[in-house]
Amino acid sequence: MTRLFNDPAVFADEALEGFAAAHRDRVRPVTGGVVRAGATPAGQVAVVIGGGSGHYPAFSGLVGRGLAHGAAVGNVFASPSAGRIRSVARAAHGGAGVLLMYGNYAGDVLHFGQAAERLAADGIESRTFAVTDDISSAAPGESAKRRGIAGDLPVFKAAAAAAEQGLALDEVLAVAERANARTRSFGIAFSGCTLPGADHPLFTVPEARMAVGLGIHGEPGIGEEALPTADEAARLLVTTLLGELPEGIGRPEGQRAAVILNGLGSVKYEELFVVYRKVAELLGEAGVDIVEPEVGELVTSFDMAGVSLTLTWLDDDLERLWRAPADTPAYRKGSFAAPGAPGVGNVPAAEYTEHTEGIVLPEASEDSRRAAATVLTVLHTVAGTIDTHAEELGRIDAVAGDGDHGIGMQRGSTAARRAAVDAHAQGAGAGTVLARAADAWADEAGGTSGALWGTILRALGTALGDQDAPTAPRVADGVAQASAGVRRLGGAEVGDKTMVDVLVPFADTLTAATATGSPLTAAWDRAATAAETAAAATAGLLPRRGRARPHAEKSLGTPDAGAHSLALIARAVHGVLLDHH
Amino acid sequence: MTRLFNDPAVFADEALEGFAAAHRDRVRPVTGGVVRAGATPAGQVAVVIGGGSGHYPAFSGLVGRGLAHGAAVGNVFASPSAGRIRSVARAAHGGAGVLLMYGNYAGDVLHFGQAAERLAADGIESRTFAVTDDISSAAPGESAKRRGIAGDLPVFKAAAAAAEQGLALDEVLAVAERANARTRSFGIAFSGCTLPGADHPLFTVPEARMAVGLGIHGEPGIGEEALPTADEAARLLVTTLLGELPEGIGRPEGQRAAVILNGLGSVKYEELFVVYRKVAELLGEAGVDIVEPEVGELVTSFDMAGVSLTLTWLDDDLERLWRAPADTPAYRKGSFAAPGAPGVGNVPAAEYTEHTEGIVLPEASEDSRRAAATVLTVLHTVAGTIDTHAEELGRIDAVAGDGDHGIGMQRGSTAARRAAVDAHAQGAGAGTVLARAADAWADEAGGTSGALWGTILRALGTALGDQDAPTAPRVADGVAQASAGVRRLGGAEVGDKTMVDVLVPFADTLTAATATGSPLTAAWDRAATAAETAAAATAGLLPRRGRARPHAEKSLGTPDAGAHSLALIARAVHGVLLDHH
Repeated sequence: MTRLFNDPAVFADEALEGFAAAHRDRVRPVTGGVVRAGATPAGQVAVVIGGGSGHYPAFSGLVGRGLAHGAAVGNVFASPSAGRIRSVARAAHGGAGVLLMYGNYAGDVLHFGQAAERLAADGIESRTFAVTDDISSAAPGESAKRRGIAGDLPVFKAAAAAAEQGLALDEVLAVAERANARTRSFGIAFSGCTLPGADHPLFTVPEARMAVGLGIHGEPGIGEEALPTADEAARLLVTTLLGELPEGIGRPEGQRAAVILNGLGSVKYEELFVVYRKVAELLGEAGVDIVEPEVGELVTSFDMAGVSLTLTWLDDDLERLWRAPADTPAYRKGSFAAPGAPGVGNVPAAEYTEHTEGIVLPEASEDSRRAAATVLTVLHTVAGTIDTHAEELGRIDAVAGDGDHGIGMQRGSTAARRAAVDAHAQGAGAGTVLARAADAWADEAGGTSGALWGTILRALGTALGDQDAPTAPRVADGVAQASAGVRRLGGAEVGDKTMVDVLVPFADTLTAATATGSPLTAAWDRAATAAETAAAATAGLLPRRGRARPHAEKSLGTPDAGAHSLALIARAVHGVLLDHH
Repeated sequence: MTRLFNDPAVFADEALEGFAAAHRDRVRPVTGGVVRAGATPAGQVAVVIGGGSGHYPAFSGLVGRGLAHGAAVGNVFASPSAGRIRSVARAAHGGAGVLLMYGNYAGDVLHFGQAAERLAADGIESRTFAVTDDISSAAPGESAKRRGIAGDLPVFKAAAAAAEQGLALDEVLAVAERANARTRSFGIAFSGCTLPGADHPLFTVPEARMAVGLGIHGEPGIGEEALPTADEAARLLVTTLLGELPEGIGRPEGQRAAVILNGLGSVKYEELFVVYRKVAELLGEAGVDIVEPEVGELVTSFDMAGVSLTLTWLDDDLERLWRAPADTPAYRKGSFAAPGAPGVGNVPAAEYTEHTEGIVLPEASEDSRRAAATVLTVLHTVAGTIDTHAEELGRIDAVAGDGDHGIGMQRGSTAARRAAVDAHAQGAGAGTVLARAADAWADEAGGTSGALWGTILRALGTALGDQDAPTAPRVADGVAQASAGVRRLGGAEVGDKTMVDVLVPFADTLTAATATGSPLTAAWDRAATAAETAAAATAGLLPRRGRARPHAEKSLGTPDAGAHSLALIARAVHGVLLDHH
């Protein structure tokens, strides 16, 4: 239960602000997250980590000497946008390139990948790396599909310590790969988490039961068992991890391992210690040499009650990196030989922000400005429709996903409307209004849906431009481009139970109808009907999205949230077209 | 909700064991708690802190360089016994005396005071100091009656840093006094906490409401208000603390303050940061200069949802001590100039335990050994009676106290029975059996009731001795001595709504009845009836005990738990006497 918040929509921003205020000796706020208070030493690779908010101390609490140079954070459980990641990476860059690190979730993969492209355009070399330690999220043969949970910490730390020691970008990346290949986690949960402003948790676990194989976004587990004693829980965690040793490690005897017993948010430290007591005993019996264990909250899932165990099987190099000192707001170990205390750098602690004002608007024709007014009405209607359905969308999403679809869509559509109002007031044409709305949606919403809706609006803006009056074929062409862009970016096809299942028939129907000379309003009506039919059909499909649970049979019978919201928007926009006809 | 435990009765012990295993580089387990892994430097005053378990990182997590030299911990929410405190103090002693520090609760005051006496007998000089920062627990004029909550940390730290700098025992005590006089805390709560194995929280707060003026043992607040926004909560905390500035501080403008925003256990760090954002803003507006703030879980109340704000108004000395480095499992700041890394000491990390075996039993007569068998039966019956009523006693205690009376009595009576069985098997007389049972009860139960029941059994043992057969007047004399001892130790009188309300009429009735020649069984029956009447009468009294809430009118109508359990035991013992008659 979250009790202390103001406007839930700005919870993550306010938390970041308070965090930076409490730790101004160690971190410096920048657009999109925080960087170390001191500058990245020239010639040192910068490790920039990130992900959604709600995982504290991941990600902002892990910024400091010996660990990350910066952290980009999004909304609660939503990936930061590419723009936010780029901003943090630019602020952290020390001239030797940037390694972008994150847990393996569709939204993060999308946005960090886009950020890397934008950094390349800025002339900053970067690499991306997704942590995949959660053994419950995919079979051993599909380890690249696994999610990142508390194994984030040892993998981030290994790479960051390597960067601190002066390794080059690709060498640091190789360290991250080796650390990740030797890191395995497994977790159990006793309750879901409740996002700020929500009345109900994302999922519930029946009393005296336990979900096995948790996700850190409140994803339900892959199985359910009776609530164990602390000792039984320890045995389950240890036995499961010893049952899947990384390649090259034949047996646990004589191996060294970094051990992390991680609390998900609502488990008391005393409980963790009771479990750790048995974990240490069992690992000892198996002949494993425990190296500098960590017991505590390191990667949380808001207020979820659960615990995970992580083992990183060490070689000499990895052990040295694990033992290396670190000094961040939430994670400190050892001490640095050099006096360079945290916060001592030659960069003023003034806030680093990117300025976007003062950019000249492209010229627009009278026709396009008139069309921009209609676009504005459409965006008002989209935001209003999402507001009305936000809770329902969250509920649908919570069945197989992390329940943040409604919140993300709300933030994105609201930001898009705001940006559109500004651009329109400055005299922008339809294309520029849509382009500004696209950037605002992607940046504010974060998450997968933010990136995809940014793509959709951008494609429409490009098709409409700022000169000509929009015609039905031009609109249809924009939608077709949006459809292609979303498929390219999201890597999903029809049948995967995503918004693509809806966007493709919508675009195809619109193109076919306008090609036969049908006016836009009538063509849109047919396309919206096709969208509604397709959205309903996703209820009969098993999900295949990267983030969805591999065994989430429960979601059969529920439509996909992204598909559903697209169909709702298509229908609402038809209403605007009717009025403006 | 506590989910991860084994036997609830050993939860605190197992948590301490796991904690020590996870932090063996920093701390060393000893009987009763932990001390630093490295030895206390010769000539340095040792600061030994302590209290019940369930407050992690208080108290064991605060042991290390720059902070405590040792921590004595009791059961969940129960003071450690004098024996445990003495053991930790002896292990931490560096030859320059010991400062014993704890929050101001009746049980802690009792046990730490007794420990100081026992240390004096060991030739170790010590001082005791109780922190009193919670402004909601007594009026400003009665600040000595206030409880200690998160202000424990800055007061412990000031004293420990002063010790680290080589100050003498009384100088360190003076620093503690000054820091405490300048420290104020105020808290709010949204839910009570649920002890391991319990089905229900110690208290509940209605949905969308908030308790104002929390205690850290799940004590209900002094008032109740509507659930505020995070900003409103921040304003309440700041305004309340600025409304009671310590003596000598006329106005907040231009003052420096150490600021601690403390989470009670179930509040997320993100929520704390959202609140801190406003706290920092409001203090800034008031002209207060915030020095090295702490936002996090520092003194918790198990899984209670709540937050407290602590301000320590700094002078130059206190600021230097607050900024001084510290390196403990849960609290680290700055870094030490000297290389002496944590855990580097010349003391072997082997466990330090006190051995009590091999002590010769006093000679006993046949008569006294026969009486010892009856004593054994009495202790079996006492333990059985408490087992049966443990839940009921906890429920009664939760109304005005911290709900641990049942658990404490259960642990104490079980340990007493075990010790009595051992002593009896070795051929001890009635006096020695009772003396052993007394020590076991006090050591295992901890808390106020542990100390008082230890006193009762010890007084009875002294009266019975190991030579003569017990007579009715001798038993009555023992009970009278117990009554006097309890009043002396607990500082309570009849009418204060404590066990004294029952013990005094019980003892008086027994003395009067046996004086007229009544046989023990009949006299005991009359005394037990008097006890039952007196226990029921406590339901009509306002509580006046130190630990009870100053405004806990709610407890009117509920009998006192300690009074009730004494009456239950008196009646049960009568049954044994009837059988043995």
